[in-house]
Amino acid sequence: MNPREMLATAVAEARAGLAEGGVPIGAALFTRDGKLLGRGHNRRVQWDDPAIHAETDAFRAAGRQRDYRDTVMVTTLSPCWYCSGLVRQFNIGAVIIGEASNFHGGHDWLAELGVEVAVLDDPDCTAMLGSFIEANPALWHEDIGVAD
Amino acid sequence: MNPREMLATAVAEARAGLAEGGVPIGAALFTRDGKLLGRGHNRRVQWDDPAIHAETDAFRAAGRQRDYRDTVMVTTLSPCWYCSGLVRQFNIGAVIIGEASNFHGGHDWLAELGVEVAVLDDPDCTAMLGSFIEANPALWHEDIGVAD
Repeated sequence: MNPREMLATAVAEARAGLAEGGVPIGAALFTRDGKLLGRGHNRRVQWDDPAIHAETDAFRAAGRQRDYRDTVMVTTLSPCWYCSGLVRQFNIGAVIIGEASNFHGGHDWLAELGVEVAVLDDPDCTAMLGSFIEANPALWHEDIGVAD
Repeated sequence: MNPREMLATAVAEARAGLAEGGVPIGAALFTRDGKLLGRGHNRRVQWDDPAIHAETDAFRAAGRQRDYRDTVMVTTLSPCWYCSGLVRQFNIGAVIIGEASNFHGGHDWLAELGVEVAVLDDPDCTAMLGSFIEANPALWHEDIGVAD
């Protein structure tokens, strides 16, 4: 399974979130050889839960694991500091990112720490979230902790 | 409300977690003037959920907020990178920490970034978690992402 195939799962999650009226960011946790461990999306609106970003939802869905070094977190958007911290703490080995244009989180920091990071510059990811941010600036700012 | 009074809420949460058979780490989110917004504890064992650390549980329990700059996260243990990333992303203004002896997370990083950080060196916090780690080393390692 190549990075773009993994990203497709995250994109499907983002689209599901959008259809639910939520922030359209999706993620999935795979093993390096392509086995899906968990998938998820941002649930701030849907569940009234500010703690569920796409990456934390995928991590949650993967259940308890003993070793994340051979796992890959794929996400439609550059992971925020919260989600980058998750990757660092649990030693997730690689991060595949759809786009980092709408938001630039902690992925450079992760790369410096030795995490394999790939930014795919996927135009569908950029367009989907870009349109959402334009239409919902207050919700977007809330989701990334930017106060008025 | 002083830092030790705030810490008492986090300690009560850690004790509740211990009584449930879980990892005894507790946290609470307050406003600076002492209003409790949310409290919680590690739920890895209880809910089979690796994403719920004490700090993320307290953050979740506080619900959706527009501005965290005047909030204080109090936790029985130095926040791991995951929880430190949460503090950074949402601009939580201050972190009060029971102890950093059993585990030293990202609180120095937060202090460098301008977050007000206080480590209280509370002997009860240190003893409670220290005993738990001694009795449950594998579970503890799982909770902080240390593979065998």
